[in-house]
Amino acid sequence: ALVEQWWPRVMRHGDDAEVLAALRGLPVLITAGPTREALDPVRCLTNHSSGKMGYALAQALTAAGAEVTLIAGPTALPRPALDQFVAVESALDMYAQVLARVAECAIFIAAAAVADYRPASPLPTKFKKHTADLTLHLTRNPDILADVAARIAPPFTVGFAAETVTTVEELADLATAKRLNKRLNMIAANRVGGDSGGFERDDNALLVLWDGGNHHLPLQSKTQLAAALTILIAERYALSTASQTSRPAPRA
Amino acid sequence: ALVEQWWPRVMRHGDDAEVLAALRGLPVLITAGPTREALDPVRCLTNHSSGKMGYALAQALTAAGAEVTLIAGPTALPRPALDQFVAVESALDMYAQVLARVAECAIFIAAAAVADYRPASPLPTKFKKHTADLTLHLTRNPDILADVAARIAPPFTVGFAAETVTTVEELADLATAKRLNKRLNMIAANRVGGDSGGFERDDNALLVLWDGGNHHLPLQSKTQLAAALTILIAERYALSTASQTSRPAPRA
Repeated sequence: ALVEQWWPRVMRHGDDAEVLAALRGLPVLITAGPTREALDPVRCLTNHSSGKMGYALAQALTAAGAEVTLIAGPTALPRPALDQFVAVESALDMYAQVLARVAECAIFIAAAAVADYRPASPLPTKFKKHTADLTLHLTRNPDILADVAARIAPPFTVGFAAETVTTVEELADLATAKRLNKRLNMIAANRVGGDSGGFERDDNALLVLWDGGNHHLPLQSKTQLAAALTILIAERYALSTASQTSRPAPRA
Repeated sequence: ALVEQWWPRVMRHGDDAEVLAALRGLPVLITAGPTREALDPVRCLTNHSSGKMGYALAQALTAAGAEVTLIAGPTALPRPALDQFVAVESALDMYAQVLARVAECAIFIAAAAVADYRPASPLPTKFKKHTADLTLHLTRNPDILADVAARIAPPFTVGFAAETVTTVEELADLATAKRLNKRLNMIAANRVGGDSGGFERDDNALLVLWDGGNHHLPLQSKTQLAAALTILIAERYALSTASQTSRPAPRA
């Protein structure tokens, strides 16, 4: 019922219902939003992710009949109408929640903008400002998406890449390198900076790449983008389960 | 009219209207929310301030008839119904906007949680994660409140202090030191951490201190707290303009 109510409003072409049928009843894990890495009880390192893309994907996949679990960092968005919603703060929190659920999921979509680094030694009390300069030591966070894709029996993995590049060719090169390096099934890339959409905006454009193909989704609302991306995911997922050789090969 | 509509809903005692009359037509500058200090186009250093206290104060003072200008860092709150609303990102942005307006204001309320430090060299493009560890060099931001209070003819200044302390005596000592050090007329202090209210919460408790007095405002909604604090500000402001010696003396 949901699929009939929701999809006609965002999609115009007709034969998507058949494609989307591949998602029905499928357990899907989605991450969304930023993570917050504490320096002390008050200060944090974070990023400008609004969570809108991940939330829109959770809505689109739910409408398509998938069993969605959304693991989200702190956002200003209203709590979504999902049975499985897990709120997290830090990258380590998100990592633990993903690992606890990934074995059961068929598709993993990493839409969260996970902080790459966290303060090496967060302070238990608010530090006092005494000095003109301060040196902050950061340590690398786990790469949640790469670790999921490197599992022995990984789910179908979809990553995102936000890059400050000027041309679509540079974007495609960086995103393809990321896809191959992390062994992802699919990557959705966008340019950040300028007027190219993305973080904290309601619209975005995405270049979606997979092994042997790509598709450009022009600037549109994140709701429409999530619908279009869900159809691409459904198509590629169906093909990957139909073939034993669909997983990208490890790099030589 | 606004004062009659708004105040009865939040205040219970009767003789506040006379006190609040001191604020009528008075230009008041309020800062609210966190600031965001960019590391690169995507990453930032920030804090957990929701902006609720500053927004509630802007509402309370407007309802009391003051001419409020609100300068706010990025929050998830709806844009307030104020003629004078200025959105800023970084501490340097906020500093510039405050300096441009402070000469005309009679009262300055610094409810923003301004980042003390910013990355010394923000990067124009998103940096790539290659190393296990990273050292971030931070440099001190200007102290907006202290600079305003140190002006030759300063407005009546109200600061906030959020401290990770366990007892109210420690809180009073730290807040009094901050008030004297920065030469503020009034400071509103609260404990952070634990279940003591504060950042990202709808309620809070405040210990309000001034030269020769203090008042404890118990845990209540930020709307109620803003109303109670506005009455204290109106009282102390009226007394400060009635006397030439009301400004705290510089420390020996």
